[in-house]
Amino acid sequence: MLRVGLLGAGRIGQVHAVNITGNARSTLVAVSDVIEEAAESLAAAYGAQARSSASILGDPSIDAVLIATSTDTHSDLIEAAVISGKAVLCEKPVDLSLERAKACLDKVANTVTPVMIGFNRRFDPSFSSLKAASQRGEIGKSELLSITSFDPAPPPVSYVKVSGGLFRDMMIHDFDMANFLMGTRPVTVRAVGTSIVDPEIGQAGDVDTAVVTMTYDDGRIAVIKNSRRAVYGYDQRVELLGSEGLLQAQNMLENTVVKSTASGVVSAKPTYFFLERYMPAYAAEWEAFVDAALSGAPMPVSLEDGVAALAMAEAATQSARTGQAVEVAYRIQEFPSA
Amino acid sequence: MLRVGLLGAGRIGQVHAVNITGNARSTLVAVSDVIEEAAESLAAAYGAQARSSASILGDPSIDAVLIATSTDTHSDLIEAAVISGKAVLCEKPVDLSLERAKACLDKVANTVTPVMIGFNRRFDPSFSSLKAASQRGEIGKSELLSITSFDPAPPPVSYVKVSGGLFRDMMIHDFDMANFLMGTRPVTVRAVGTSIVDPEIGQAGDVDTAVVTMTYDDGRIAVIKNSRRAVYGYDQRVELLGSEGLLQAQNMLENTVVKSTASGVVSAKPTYFFLERYMPAYAAEWEAFVDAALSGAPMPVSLEDGVAALAMAEAATQSARTGQAVEVAYRIQEFPSA
Amino acid sequence: MLRVGLLGAGRIGQVHAVNITGNARSTLVAVSDVIEEAAESLAAAYGAQARSSASILGDPSIDAVLIATSTDTHSDLIEAAVISGKAVLCEKPVDLSLERAKACLDKVANTVTPVMIGFNRRFDPSFSSLKAASQRGEIGKSELLSITSFDPAPPPVSYVKVSGGLFRDMMIHDFDMANFLMGTRPVTVRAVGTSIVDPEIGQAGDVDTAVVTMTYDDGRIAVIKNSRRAVYGYDQRVELLGSEGLLQAQNMLENTVVKSTASGVVSAKPTYFFLERYMPAYAAEWEAFVDAALSGAPMPVSLEDGVAALAMAEAATQSARTGQAVEVAYRIQEFPSA
Amino acid sequence: MLRVGLLGAGRIGQVHAVNITGNARSTLVAVSDVIEEAAESLAAAYGAQARSSASILGDPSIDAVLIATSTDTHSDLIEAAVISGKAVLCEKPVDLSLERAKACLDKVANTVTPVMIGFNRRFDPSFSSLKAASQRGEIGKSELLSITSFDPAPPPVSYVKVSGGLFRDMMIHDFDMANFLMGTRPVTVRAVGTSIVDPEIGQAGDVDTAVVTMTYDDGRIAVIKNSRRAVYGYDQRVELLGSEGLLQAQNMLENTVVKSTASGVVSAKPTYFFLERYMPAYAAEWEAFVDAALSGAPMPVSLEDGVAALAMAEAATQSARTGQAVEVAYRIQEFPSA
Repeated sequence: MLRVGLLGAGRIGQVHAVNITGNARSTLVAVSDVIEEAAESLAAAYGAQARSSASILGDPSIDAVLIATSTDTHSDLIEAAVISGKAVLCEKPVDLSLERAKACLDKVANTVTPVMIGFNRRFDPSFSSLKAASQRGEIGKSELLSITSFDPAPPPVSYVKVSGGLFRDMMIHDFDMANFLMGTRPVTVRAVGTSIVDPEIGQAGDVDTAVVTMTYDDGRIAVIKNSRRAVYGYDQRVELLGSEGLLQAQNMLENTVVKSTASGVVSAKPTYFFLERYMPAYAAEWEAFVDAALSGAPMPVSLEDGVAALAMAEAATQSARTGQAVEVAYRIQEFPSA
Repeated sequence: MLRVGLLGAGRIGQVHAVNITGNARSTLVAVSDVIEEAAESLAAAYGAQARSSASILGDPSIDAVLIATSTDTHSDLIEAAVISGKAVLCEKPVDLSLERAKACLDKVANTVTPVMIGFNRRFDPSFSSLKAASQRGEIGKSELLSITSFDPAPPPVSYVKVSGGLFRDMMIHDFDMANFLMGTRPVTVRAVGTSIVDPEIGQAGDVDTAVVTMTYDDGRIAVIKNSRRAVYGYDQRVELLGSEGLLQAQNMLENTVVKSTASGVVSAKPTYFFLERYMPAYAAEWEAFVDAALSGAPMPVSLEDGVAALAMAEAATQSARTGQAVEVAYRIQEFPSA
Repeated sequence: MLRVGLLGAGRIGQVHAVNITGNARSTLVAVSDVIEEAAESLAAAYGAQARSSASILGDPSIDAVLIATSTDTHSDLIEAAVISGKAVLCEKPVDLSLERAKACLDKVANTVTPVMIGFNRRFDPSFSSLKAASQRGEIGKSELLSITSFDPAPPPVSYVKVSGGLFRDMMIHDFDMANFLMGTRPVTVRAVGTSIVDPEIGQAGDVDTAVVTMTYDDGRIAVIKNSRRAVYGYDQRVELLGSEGLLQAQNMLENTVVKSTASGVVSAKPTYFFLERYMPAYAAEWEAFVDAALSGAPMPVSLEDGVAALAMAEAATQSARTGQAVEVAYRIQEFPSA
Repeated sequence: MLRVGLLGAGRIGQVHAVNITGNARSTLVAVSDVIEEAAESLAAAYGAQARSSASILGDPSIDAVLIATSTDTHSDLIEAAVISGKAVLCEKPVDLSLERAKACLDKVANTVTPVMIGFNRRFDPSFSSLKAASQRGEIGKSELLSITSFDPAPPPVSYVKVSGGLFRDMMIHDFDMANFLMGTRPVTVRAVGTSIVDPEIGQAGDVDTAVVTMTYDDGRIAVIKNSRRAVYGYDQRVELLGSEGLLQAQNMLENTVVKSTASGVVSAKPTYFFLERYMPAYAAEWEAFVDAALSGAPMPVSLEDGVAALAMAEAATQSARTGQAVEVAYRIQEFPSA
């Protein structure tokens, strides 16, 4: 049984609390939050204790921590947790600063404490099935990857200003998905972006619609499309063309009802947003973390994966600004092909 | 080159004229109609002559006739055409009277002149693919057949009164489809019908919505659903459950556009009615007729098939009236299993 | 907080235990089973006590019981629980004997203790959406209902022998679905059945494939198709044709991956069986029960609903045997149209 | 009645011959080809005469010519036909050389003879429905266009060498589709290409897989994906994201049969290649040409459209070579926004 401390009792922390509690091999021991009432309320609902982060990190009876705090605390908490020998599952991104994230990676590089970054989409049943089919060679050699990833509605401009920008905040999931599905990392990144959804987002220095094209050592190509607004719901699709076929992962719909009338044939919309769409993925992510933490197997998503996605976001941000192709600066020795 | 006379220049005659002309191995020589202007206008459009039916049937240079006249003339014209040695493609049904149809069958039974009944749906690309897949054993042994067949809108009550009723006029296509897909004919028929779409249809002694269940010698079951009204268009679907799977033929849509908005995901409707849906089927039907007429191979849909479907319609009409199961009275010696 | 005793620790009891525990407004207090170890193991997993049914029924601190025992004990347990004043959720069917079920209904008719029958499919997100759309008038007046309900594989013949037969054991869900979607109960039932999947099922006196047609007072028609074997998975679909359109609830698929290769375009299969397909329905069913039990509102599925479905199964069994249409013997005074 | 001369009796010429003959308002008078037998055979099949191009162009009784010859003759024949006052429908591309195409445009710029370029995909029922829906504002303001366009199999390397390259030979259709759907032309083009399908194509100096990103004056973005090989068939899809929704045009399938077995749910493949997929588009294209030629209305696809697509192909070829974004050099005065 894995004894778990949860750092952060916000929306995503609450999702994790359900999964920690519902998993037969883990138990939620303690919850912390900068807002004490939030920690207390969440802890009470699941028979856990509200404590400070420091107290949780210092408690030798706690085996693992789940970091669901604000992004600017992630690196510090990862380092502290690793020092105290606790298995770590940390929400993405590692940090908004690639430098800080690399420093964190350096610091924990030689420890044996397992760290996993919460790229939950890898655990979505459809995306993981697609990857498995690709790995079994069902479409031969992969050649061209396309990722469509649209949010239902743009966040407030106030959020945009502190988000690190679309590439670090939103597309980072898609960069990791590309790494996951291609099994390696791109060498060059080309980005175009526009603030066509909301000009205020442009005035805040960000884009809300973007296309990124990436090339790989072996001649493959990937393209990612992002928009902050798809009024019909969360649009999360992947297509992988290979020498012997095409794999597509399509949207999950709210239900399977189809209505045919004189004005057309109407199906349900995609599930509204990540909480609905990725609920099974969050549960499977936690299951995978528990597996690795209890068995000592390598974490399925590493801290390096987190830093790699951030490096790609950095390159895309730069490319969108300059209009030029940008080579991604991984520190190659640390990022062996996945 | 097959030289063809077309008897009947109405809506369905015009469809056939296009296919006769467009087929590289047939040519439209003459057209007749009770309305002379109709024959003349259609003949002119395709470089043929407007003539009387008698003149066409008496012309030894004409190889084949296509009978697209009113139902009450079908049997007479089939007999006359057979006597004059012309290959015949006759629109369904053979006759509204099963007795008359059987008499027609008796009359031509010992001739070698080939007669084909126009059950066009057998030539629909989806239904014929489904049949081929079933024959290849792709779903093992078939067990349960379901046919959904809805018209977009009910005909005028004046038409209903002379139509012979839903079972003879509309479901006859589905009876033949069942024979085509099951490869044999049912032994009992149970029908329920209602005039829920339009009470006037009920006052005219007919039904507009009906379900027929049929059982077979070998334990299989088929069910046919008909409605005179599906406001979203012509709904023509088939499902065949077998020991190793299910085959479905779904509707053809007007186009492949899908629109996703805040109010749902909208696809195109099914093609509106039989002229749109079965246009490729009519062309393939004609191609099959020309094949058989030129090669001397057996016609793909026989006069017996036409009489069998009529016998099933007769049984269904009786069952709907009495509420009892009815055994179908084929003259077994003449209807070997297809 | 609803304090719950679970009677029956088998497969379906385990499903319910998860939902009782996972629901914020209910808590699992005690578990009983004829196999003591089963009760103990399940109780331990959820922090409950293993006790006898009698002890649970006699415990005034327990508010509600969930009856998930073998069918032959349902009526007795319902009666005992009602006497002890506990809210009841009982798995279907009420009993294999219509007489016994009616007697149970008589016994509890004048009590105020709420009883709900576990027709879980009413709570499936797609079926309940379809019903809601129909009630909003989105397809006008309903006319023709079709239910397709195929199991992935037949049960052992030993089970078939004690199951009460396909109509009582399997189609009973579809009878209830018809009542749910049509909002009333049929007047006549016509059934045909065959044992084409497995002749041993026929030798055991049952059928494995059946079609039932039902007619309603107001001229509507419903048809239900059942097969014990659909090798591609649990096939659970509904279609409702109305004056202004068609509503369909289609299958849920295991995932949304589509693979296109030279040999075709392949999608995932339907979710395998009821545990996968109806997991969300079981949770929603429990939520609805808790709602009603805590608020005192009428139960969403009544004991009368359970008896009505059984009466329809009885009629279908008789019709399949005699080949005749059968009028359903509800005791009309007790079954007002839903 | 439009009297038509057909220049070129190859595969695409044969497609056009069927449509010219089958259209009630046009008649095929004469056919020419560099291979005399080809012209004679095609002419014979449709009751036309085999003649030389010069003779056709010099015949005042011929109203229109359809140019379906090899690409290097297009510009010369357009000019000659315009001089002789015949309406022209010329297959794409205008020329492999942008310079030559522009010179052709200059030459005919001040004549009144109508010239149409054969971008047949604009007339595909799904793409034209999508455009119409967009124009009706059904998805608000368009923001992001995606075009997927994969051929079933790469052409022989010998063809690749003289084709002008993927961007001029294959993606030119997609450039025009972007212009058609966006209603204007892009300002910058970024291309990446690879020869991952067949290294010999790379050795011949071309790519077989490419992604092009285009930006527009008003902030919109378009992305085109091309591959020379999709083993499952001709993959021709379009997606247009707007402020109020998404429009997708999906593939046409060979038929509507769906087979569900223990190994999955299998649908038909997309129609194999352009002759199957775009047959209705070719007929509609010809209908639109006849409309304009007989009525004097502007041609629905202009020579300028042909030159614009070529300019985009030129820019993409250059971008793929240099790795840089390229501004497209239209001569703006001649290319008012469509």
